[in-house]
Amino acid sequence: MCRWNAYFGQPLLMEELLFKMDHGLIDQSLHAKMGVETTNGDGFGLGWYGEHGGRPCRYRSITPAWSNVNLRELAANVESPLFLAHIRATTGTPVQETNCHPFRHRNWLLVHNGVIHGFEQMRRELMLAIEPSLFGDVSGSTDSETLFYLALTFGLTDDPIAGLERAVGFVEATARSHGIEDPVQMTIGVSDGTRLWSVRYSSEHQSRTLFFSADVSALRELHPESERLQRLGDEARAVVSEPLGDLPGAWIEVPESTALIVQPGPDEQRRWV
Amino acid sequence: MCRWNAYFGQPLLMEELLFKMDHGLIDQSLHAKMGVETTNGDGFGLGWYGEHGGRPCRYRSITPAWSNVNLRELAANVESPLFLAHIRATTGTPVQETNCHPFRHRNWLLVHNGVIHGFEQMRRELMLAIEPSLFGDVSGSTDSETLFYLALTFGLTDDPIAGLERAVGFVEATARSHGIEDPVQMTIGVSDGTRLWSVRYSSEHQSRTLFFSADVSALRELHPESERLQRLGDEARAVVSEPLGDLPGAWIEVPESTALIVQPGPDEQRRWV
Amino acid sequence: MCRWNAYFGQPLLMEELLFKMDHGLIDQSLHAKMGVETTNGDGFGLGWYGEHGGRPCRYRSITPAWSNVNLRELAANVESPLFLAHIRATTGTPVQETNCHPFRHRNWLLVHNGVIHGFEQMRRELMLAIEPSLFGDVSGSTDSETLFYLALTFGLTDDPIAGLERAVGFVEATARSHGIEDPVQMTIGVSDGTRLWSVRYSSEHQSRTLFFSADVSALRELHPESERLQRLGDEARAVVSEPLGDLPGAWIEVPESTALIVQPGPDEQRRWV
Amino acid sequence: MCRWNAYFGQPLLMEELLFKMDHGLIDQSLHAKMGVETTNGDGFGLGWYGEHGGRPCRYRSITPAWSNVNLRELAANVESPLFLAHIRATTGTPVQETNCHPFRHRNWLLVHNGVIHGFEQMRRELMLAIEPSLFGDVSGSTDSETLFYLALTFGLTDDPIAGLERAVGFVEATARSHGIEDPVQMTIGVSDGTRLWSVRYSSEHQSRTLFFSADVSALRELHPESERLQRLGDEARAVVSEPLGDLPGAWIEVPESTALIVQPGPDEQRRWV
Repeated sequence: MCRWNAYFGQPLLMEELLFKMDHGLIDQSLHAKMGVETTNGDGFGLGWYGEHGGRPCRYRSITPAWSNVNLRELAANVESPLFLAHIRATTGTPVQETNCHPFRHRNWLLVHNGVIHGFEQMRRELMLAIEPSLFGDVSGSTDSETLFYLALTFGLTDDPIAGLERAVGFVEATARSHGIEDPVQMTIGVSDGTRLWSVRYSSEHQSRTLFFSADVSALRELHPESERLQRLGDEARAVVSEPLGDLPGAWIEVPESTALIVQPGPDEQRRWV
Repeated sequence: MCRWNAYFGQPLLMEELLFKMDHGLIDQSLHAKMGVETTNGDGFGLGWYGEHGGRPCRYRSITPAWSNVNLRELAANVESPLFLAHIRATTGTPVQETNCHPFRHRNWLLVHNGVIHGFEQMRRELMLAIEPSLFGDVSGSTDSETLFYLALTFGLTDDPIAGLERAVGFVEATARSHGIEDPVQMTIGVSDGTRLWSVRYSSEHQSRTLFFSADVSALRELHPESERLQRLGDEARAVVSEPLGDLPGAWIEVPESTALIVQPGPDEQRRWV
Repeated sequence: MCRWNAYFGQPLLMEELLFKMDHGLIDQSLHAKMGVETTNGDGFGLGWYGEHGGRPCRYRSITPAWSNVNLRELAANVESPLFLAHIRATTGTPVQETNCHPFRHRNWLLVHNGVIHGFEQMRRELMLAIEPSLFGDVSGSTDSETLFYLALTFGLTDDPIAGLERAVGFVEATARSHGIEDPVQMTIGVSDGTRLWSVRYSSEHQSRTLFFSADVSALRELHPESERLQRLGDEARAVVSEPLGDLPGAWIEVPESTALIVQPGPDEQRRWV
Repeated sequence: MCRWNAYFGQPLLMEELLFKMDHGLIDQSLHAKMGVETTNGDGFGLGWYGEHGGRPCRYRSITPAWSNVNLRELAANVESPLFLAHIRATTGTPVQETNCHPFRHRNWLLVHNGVIHGFEQMRRELMLAIEPSLFGDVSGSTDSETLFYLALTFGLTDDPIAGLERAVGFVEATARSHGIEDPVQMTIGVSDGTRLWSVRYSSEHQSRTLFFSADVSALRELHPESERLQRLGDEARAVVSEPLGDLPGAWIEVPESTALIVQPGPDEQRRWV
């Protein structure tokens, strides 16, 4: 159970979103307001695309984001048009880099805030359902990584929403056979370098929070002193676990059981089946 | 600004104090109640004496105490008659083992909760005042370690309270010459393997909290299920930054500007000059 | 591909074996002589039993053994009658604590020097063969840990040699079906706190080296200055990947395809089937 | 005692120099050929400038370079026209990020291979000679960092060679007063983002090795398969502790007691006084 932020738009110095916003993600690592855990200090990860997409670069570490000097250096020096950042609060699995998000497969990245309840009982069955050719790539031990590989198995790279729906459906069916109720709790961020898919869903329909920026003018208003934000085009969007700053109207909640697709041209919302 | 716990008495499995108490130190690393910071996740340290005193063993790490698997292992397997544990919330200096408490010199250990305000401005002067033969042993960059070496310089190993008083006096004098007000904020735990000295002091006389266990019968009552605690003799004492558990009367606050000496025979309180 | 040392006998300060011997294990982490790799700097682990056996304590870390200050502290302060130490040179799997040896199940410890060739291709099949009730305990991603859980599945806790033989047989059969030749290369150390089983085996019958101390008088002669060694009883044995020191006759090679059982009373050698 | 590599020229993906060359720096971290130590596994650091110079970005870590996944990621994704990389073999000071090179002051970076003999005895005196306004920035405990701050004190930012000469002279004078012979052993790399100064010097005139690339055509020849290298202009230079690859004539040794200045236009060599 964690927090994540994602950005899509013109190249932005990553620290603008991660460090310089009031209540930005790194601040949330110490003092989250809306989650089950107030501290997200069990490692973190950052994945970013270059201007031409392709395989994203990734930096993950087991120390808390708030004290990680290298994260601060990279965020202050790297511009990216599309990045996902994640801070972790483990639900029991070890604090190790391979358990830090984002998970990656070729040009795909995924971050997850939530949990699969009963994962320990189901782990073997869920892992067996992973496409054998992908099995060798599973390098950590989290529910989140297993969900990622299930979604890949069920077609994520062809249709991310459909792949995730099938993976979640498979987890829910497996849980039923174990007598586990309401197994899935999640907000998910996924990207291939061209679009950003975000999903808010839980089996019990009481999902972790997820917000997106109203439009870039709201972000500009939040930080009139930031020349960089003033230059951003209208395509720019941030998707975040918790609203940053206090500006009324700046952040819109992603509705329960909904997928949001941020992309060139008009964004899209889809009811999650 | 941190938290610390110390124990003096019959050999005790360290986890009894650190992990098994309600709101024990490791729990405080995630959720402190009484301090300025609620998260103390910038490393930790543990120093313990064997049954025959001598040079204590030390384990320090830069990861948060709550997720450190090795700490859990050691605490569950090592018994000690005298140990000091510290969880760190940095006031700006790097998160590295050499900045983690306890600091050690021969058979002496010291832990510190607090801060020297204006340390950056005074660092050079304070370090110059350290006895040259000790200078080479300074391996970190904290105000706390500098204070330890100043106290060693001013006689800590002969008389810990006097050595600390002189060191604090020197810091306060140096601060005055820089126009820095109320420079010292501290609770300190010190041991040589035979006694445990604890001090609560601040230049402004509004010091961080410090408590000690009323007597061992209180601890026994707190945890009637712990056979080990039931077997403890009446000498046993714990000194802690925040009370553990909710038992009324179990914990006594160390008064402002006071030193407490836990030792074989009657303990002692001294007004800090 | 790694190195390991084990000790069985009267309680010994661990540093006597790990740090104070010429060419001891920690020295081997920087400069091994006999192995495929000369540097074993990808983490390490140490597991030790108390005087009454039971669940052993474990310390594992991802930094090199030679520079790990905490390892030096523990080895200089903890006495144990039975311990296993391991330094790692990864064959590709991540450097994380869950991939460091010894692996542990209840009161059992296992260390492995070697490799399962073709492990990536076989990983899924090998993991599926693990007893489902044990599957959830697999927390790393190495061939060694998988081999440990296979051996547990095949009866290691009832008969370690038989359990290991069946596990190795299963791996070799799986390899044959994949067209992989000579899959297993290993020396293994196993203990339950009462005995120490050591095995030297490889599918190609050209196994990594393994030695045991001739008898304690040899060790005493090696280090006449060590009072501790002079006091050791005749039961004391060390088993090591590479001989320590230069004393002729001090170390006896475990023959190819052989298991050595160090135990109270006469030790035992068995031909590995 | 360490190894370092530096690059000056057209923007180059850092992995081209660090990972893809035969016997590149990361390979040297495991198997150096020419140094006193064959393993350089006590942390590493990388500093790089953007295309417009300014304050360089830095990534330092305490784990060995050869197994650091994040280093591999960054090197494979970041292009830079000027970067310095360093792998560390400690001469005794702690393995912590603040002891890893490059050291940085504003837009300046410095890496050092070598040692100040007798540093423990002289540390206090050398630190006292550091300009007081810079003293607070010293955050580690190495001889190298002290030398950097001495050079800054003695004018490095105005004239790097002169600043280093005076700093070294001061260390040598201090050593004489302590009866320490031949105190300084060094190769140094320094940059401000526009030039790259490299120095090979030792008090005994038997200095660690240092080489620079003959000209870029040699590098191109080394790796005809690298399109990136084929595109490099003739300004491109690499300066390295040990030659990379086996191409005869590709690398020229920097003479004893000599400074090399790589810059736009003709490079320059100066006799170190």
